[in-house]
Amino acid sequence: MKNSERPIGIFDSGLGGLTVFKELRSLLPGEDLVYFGDTARVPYGTKSAEAVLSFSKEITSFLLGKKIKFLIVACNTASSLALEEIRKLSPVPVMGVIQPGAEAALKAVSAGGRVLVTGTSATVNSRAYSRALAGAGRGIKVTEKACPLFVPLVEEGWCSKPAAALTAREYLAPFRGKADVLILGCTHYPLLKKVIARVMGPRTKIVDSARAAAVSARNELAGLGLLNRARRGRSEFIVSDAPDRFSELAFKLLKIRTGRVAVKRF
Amino acid sequence: MKNSERPIGIFDSGLGGLTVFKELRSLLPGEDLVYFGDTARVPYGTKSAEAVLSFSKEITSFLLGKKIKFLIVACNTASSLALEEIRKLSPVPVMGVIQPGAEAALKAVSAGGRVLVTGTSATVNSRAYSRALAGAGRGIKVTEKACPLFVPLVEEGWCSKPAAALTAREYLAPFRGKADVLILGCTHYPLLKKVIARVMGPRTKIVDSARAAAVSARNELAGLGLLNRARRGRSEFIVSDAPDRFSELAFKLLKIRTGRVAVKRF
Repeated sequence: MKNSERPIGIFDSGLGGLTVFKELRSLLPGEDLVYFGDTARVPYGTKSAEAVLSFSKEITSFLLGKKIKFLIVACNTASSLALEEIRKLSPVPVMGVIQPGAEAALKAVSAGGRVLVTGTSATVNSRAYSRALAGAGRGIKVTEKACPLFVPLVEEGWCSKPAAALTAREYLAPFRGKADVLILGCTHYPLLKKVIARVMGPRTKIVDSARAAAVSARNELAGLGLLNRARRGRSEFIVSDAPDRFSELAFKLLKIRTGRVAVKRF
Repeated sequence: MKNSERPIGIFDSGLGGLTVFKELRSLLPGEDLVYFGDTARVPYGTKSAEAVLSFSKEITSFLLGKKIKFLIVACNTASSLALEEIRKLSPVPVMGVIQPGAEAALKAVSAGGRVLVTGTSATVNSRAYSRALAGAGRGIKVTEKACPLFVPLVEEGWCSKPAAALTAREYLAPFRGKADVLILGCTHYPLLKKVIARVMGPRTKIVDSARAAAVSARNELAGLGLLNRARRGRSEFIVSDAPDRFSELAFKLLKIRTGRVAVKRF
């Protein structure tokens, strides 16, 4: 098998990374994609760096066993806390979601502008987005705000219920009119984009790290000569627990038909 | 060391079981208590029976290594799905929280009355409360309602925020005036008792499985001659991840001062 014909591995703490999967599937219809969701240990965002690092290493080894050509860490928490360690482990290129998200934000904001990063507690505490944005040296003012209830709301399928709007107001109303760009710094958050945009008001541009990551992955694969020119790629889904629930929510929230979902327990 | 002087082991998926710990500490000030919170894998309520069983067995073995005299499974999900298997593993008596909660509800309701059980998805799907209540043969009408967002709300410390009230309304308003007794069938839920009671209205009695479990444990220990008559027992806290966060939330939500919290990773 040629290198370019091998699958792309993607992982997340649960089903949030499916927002990256979906963008990728639409941008790169010829690729084989292997998605792993760590549903036995979701959420990652309230857990320690050591725990997230240890989970991420286990999953990376598992996906490397699937002969992947490229690995996407489709979880902002794991990207913030474990990317360097995952790269050390992996003989194939590894991409996180922070750098693409930060670059997309930089394109959307003028010098000296204000960026609000939303994410899990772990992502926000790591300040990974602040570092990535400061690195550009354009005097961007960055604020980070943890929104820990967004992931459980999405996992409950309540993206357009009044409780989602109220929770978004509780976290974000103090920032209304005070940000030029808001980064959805968690792959679950694109599912709450509408309620978040409503709280922030029309002057704030919303940058979606899932979309940015998929575009960036396509560019990187093209640069490496690793794009698969097949007509129609296959999709494989593996979770660490509760495959039926994963399959139901994938369809309910993102209209993704997973087919049979396999289970790998650690 | 006499048997009665050995500690009591308590475990939960996270910090919800602290509601049982707190009742127990107040009922039995002389006991040494060892509490384990599985904060690396919380929540249990949306996970499969296999996963919850496997986690529960690991924790039981760990607590048995602490030379406990009695084990309290202070998690409704683990009590629903794993109690029999834990009993097979354990040479010391094991108590869950379902039976005490069901018995307290039976005391509070007349024959033919209506009981609403609230709990995690896993607890509700197991129908453990329905079986325990039907066993009494008093023609009680039981309805079970899963409230998956209550645990994340408590873990976020939002017990009296508007989002908690709105979420409680979304889950429970259809049952207002239609239940004589509501069982708080998750050890996190006593922390939301006020907002739940407000939705249900004044005619519904609220039964707290945490309180019921503590009373039942005291009675069982007395029956076995295992009560510790010491003046002041010690408390030990161990978690599988993020000890500082556990300690902060224990104080914020329940005014429990944990002191140093140890970490045991699986």
